[in-house]
Amino acid sequence: MARRARAARNRRSAPASSPASPHIRRVLPHVDMLDESQLEKLDAQVDWIIQDVGIAFREDPEALRIWKNAGAKIDGDIIKAPADWIRSLCAKAPSQFTQLARNRERSVTIGGENQVFAPIYGAPFVRDLEGGRRYGDIEGFKKLVKLTYMHPNLHQGGFVICEPCDVPVSKRHLDMLLAHMTLSDKPHLGAITEMSRAQDSVDMAEIVFGKEVMDRHCVILGNVNTNSPLLVDKVVTEAIRTYCSRGQGIIVVPFILSGAMGPVSTTASVTQAMAEALMVCAFSQLVREGAPFVLGNFLSSMSLKSGAPTFGMPEPVVSNYVIGQMARRAGLPLRCGGSLTASKIEDAQAGYESADSMHSTMLAGANYVLHAAGWLEGGLCTGFEKLVMDADRLGSYQKILDQGLDMSEEAFARDAYEEVGPGGHFLGSAHTMRNYQTAFYEPKLSNSENVESWEETGSKDMRRRAHERWTEMLEHYQTPPIDEALREELEAFAARRKKELPDAWY
Amino acid sequence: MARRARAARNRRSAPASSPASPHIRRVLPHVDMLDESQLEKLDAQVDWIIQDVGIAFREDPEALRIWKNAGAKIDGDIIKAPADWIRSLCAKAPSQFTQLARNRERSVTIGGENQVFAPIYGAPFVRDLEGGRRYGDIEGFKKLVKLTYMHPNLHQGGFVICEPCDVPVSKRHLDMLLAHMTLSDKPHLGAITEMSRAQDSVDMAEIVFGKEVMDRHCVILGNVNTNSPLLVDKVVTEAIRTYCSRGQGIIVVPFILSGAMGPVSTTASVTQAMAEALMVCAFSQLVREGAPFVLGNFLSSMSLKSGAPTFGMPEPVVSNYVIGQMARRAGLPLRCGGSLTASKIEDAQAGYESADSMHSTMLAGANYVLHAAGWLEGGLCTGFEKLVMDADRLGSYQKILDQGLDMSEEAFARDAYEEVGPGGHFLGSAHTMRNYQTAFYEPKLSNSENVESWEETGSKDMRRRAHERWTEMLEHYQTPPIDEALREELEAFAARRKKELPDAWY
Repeated sequence: MARRARAARNRRSAPASSPASPHIRRVLPHVDMLDESQLEKLDAQVDWIIQDVGIAFREDPEALRIWKNAGAKIDGDIIKAPADWIRSLCAKAPSQFTQLARNRERSVTIGGENQVFAPIYGAPFVRDLEGGRRYGDIEGFKKLVKLTYMHPNLHQGGFVICEPCDVPVSKRHLDMLLAHMTLSDKPHLGAITEMSRAQDSVDMAEIVFGKEVMDRHCVILGNVNTNSPLLVDKVVTEAIRTYCSRGQGIIVVPFILSGAMGPVSTTASVTQAMAEALMVCAFSQLVREGAPFVLGNFLSSMSLKSGAPTFGMPEPVVSNYVIGQMARRAGLPLRCGGSLTASKIEDAQAGYESADSMHSTMLAGANYVLHAAGWLEGGLCTGFEKLVMDADRLGSYQKILDQGLDMSEEAFARDAYEEVGPGGHFLGSAHTMRNYQTAFYEPKLSNSENVESWEETGSKDMRRRAHERWTEMLEHYQTPPIDEALREELEAFAARRKKELPDAWY
Repeated sequence: MARRARAARNRRSAPASSPASPHIRRVLPHVDMLDESQLEKLDAQVDWIIQDVGIAFREDPEALRIWKNAGAKIDGDIIKAPADWIRSLCAKAPSQFTQLARNRERSVTIGGENQVFAPIYGAPFVRDLEGGRRYGDIEGFKKLVKLTYMHPNLHQGGFVICEPCDVPVSKRHLDMLLAHMTLSDKPHLGAITEMSRAQDSVDMAEIVFGKEVMDRHCVILGNVNTNSPLLVDKVVTEAIRTYCSRGQGIIVVPFILSGAMGPVSTTASVTQAMAEALMVCAFSQLVREGAPFVLGNFLSSMSLKSGAPTFGMPEPVVSNYVIGQMARRAGLPLRCGGSLTASKIEDAQAGYESADSMHSTMLAGANYVLHAAGWLEGGLCTGFEKLVMDADRLGSYQKILDQGLDMSEEAFARDAYEEVGPGGHFLGSAHTMRNYQTAFYEPKLSNSENVESWEETGSKDMRRRAHERWTEMLEHYQTPPIDEALREELEAFAARRKKELPDAWY
């Protein structure tokens, strides 16, 4: 209890936007759905894909040169490598690492028993209850960065919380980096769409952290998708060469819509994802031994009616649990899942699907969860209401993970039974008085009032309450302290690069 | 695949309302969050409550006489019994049993690797999108029985799907029994609020099944709450004496709002629930050795703002996983959880909370899940839309449980990789063509269309789609076949009893 009381004190004394813990330190045991023989069978197929099917590395001759120098046999652009060699390279990647934040109190550890939640990534559209659905813009993007900074249940900023579509594609990474670096002091990702943009990301991170710190620590990561099936293009290898060569991290995510980019089977698709990710992990360790690597997995089911991807469905739920176990077995940090839904708005469908998706993500042990909040419409749209609704639920998952079942003597409450007999009540018992303030997670957006009170205050549904919450949060936003010289240097860098770069919309 | 193809064929040839499987046969491994030493510590407290704190049996002298005859020491009305004796009595209850349905194809097995879903129980109010919130009535009740009968993902009918408040309390059990027995052919529960009503339930079940069948099989069960903390009143013991003495089943559920009916601690409350349920289980076995018993658990967290119970929160989620493990250890079938929410309507809050509650219920291995569909407003209100929305999600849980990860050769899809190379796609591959029709769960109420299509068809949220679905279902309702003589005998019994009983509203 002393620990909890201290935590409660810390919460009171810290600014409202500061989390009790910068990330989740899981005490809850992991969920293992497969036994050893099943895992071996899956890993045998992973090895078979690596050795006998092979994975192509395209568009980046330098990547093939790196493989060749390491002794790989290359057939055209396809590499079929001994699985034990690939796995021994993967073993050089750290099983967990810390990403420093500008505010060191917000640094996060990714891997092992640590779990980190970050918002949606990459949606071209945004939606809110008053403004409706529209293209994302830089003003909206900044609001989303601020909300992510302020929300205690989001540990890391992600990067493209929405696409700022009013800024040329060639320049928007600079505005996004500047926003993350100055409007927030949480850790975040960098750009990957083009090698020079990745380079700008790492260069700006160096302005924030200094070369010495960056040489020894991870301060920024890129997040890339393989081109499933079995294809790694230059976006991936160039990002790795840019981030990892500077000792920075890379998250590599095979995105597999079962039946399209992988066989119409969860089992096969998971092994394929694992094979693709391990091959890229091995490549990252050839670029720089010990570079932080996060093994990603994004498996989607499909509607037979429309062919559209579906979310929160049993197949990806099962895949979350399975990949969690496989990643632990491989000793690599895992990114999977999120609060995913195909719903266009924050209705019950969004709630059900996001919760099933995120419950399995959480239990499965995902170490870094992009899309943990704000995802609508299969990822095409960032919902302002959805962001704070999801984040509210993340607090529940955090409590499950970092408290589990309390086995302390106080939790057994024997004195309460000595005080309260059969048919009595515990409302005023000494044990209740000692513990009630920290006993329950208090969500901000769940309404548990009776129907009369709820009606008296306007019969507001969760979506309406969420709208009020994020608009109120923004009213209370305060820029986190930043050294003025640092801010000016970042702004000058971005301004210079924007001048150098042509306006391009692709 | 042969098994699956057969199942698919069966689905096609059977009437629309007939489930592929009458209940879930779980292949997914159980989720164990506690290790042996933690379980021992919890069980030690269970034993301590049974032995040293004691549990009161009140209002039913016959119950005390039964305990006394068995050799229990009674202090006033409190029984403190040797825990090993209580546990040895509990060991006489079956670890699983089959409840016969009028249509034997719908009989369900409760316990072991079997999981059975049933709708909400006991709400005085109903709500639907057009009619709003109102007291439940017998017309609404009949509609809910029909919908439960028709929905393939609800395996058992429960009983008080809503309170038919327009029928006197003294008589409504007869109308409810008649509805379950004639409008559906799924198995269901009986009344418990008064001993004579329990008796009517068992007597009507005997009309349906005959004395010989009832002597050898469970055909009806009662569901009762203990009067937590540590108090068992006559509703419980009389129901047990009525149901179990005829070889029928009883579900006993300590309902504990942590901080009121138990200490403000999940750990303590779970041990208390276990102690209460085991004591009642032991009593049921004194009444009739081998009587089917289901160990219930209903643990709720609380809002500090209002004192109201909250649902889908981390504390009851953790308790679901913990009680699941404890029930398996005790070798008793478990009832816990459900699709629970404090929301007044089918908004995102309802979706999130119901999914987190039900995901943990499902994974925890609950063998019988009352409130699996239709629950709103902390159980005060049955939602017509909520019923079909929840039930739609139950199909996803069923797939997770009874398929898990497919480890067949076909699921590994090696031929697909031999057909499709790096950068290709699997859409038309032979493996996809063989498997796509059964690869994905197809929910009826999740919309995965793109935003343009969704808007063109009216921008309907899930609640509106659910309204359309249940009204359409009712239009297609057909009474399941029933022997006319049987129907007349049931109707005559109900009519006679209604004549004998006074109108009473309590």
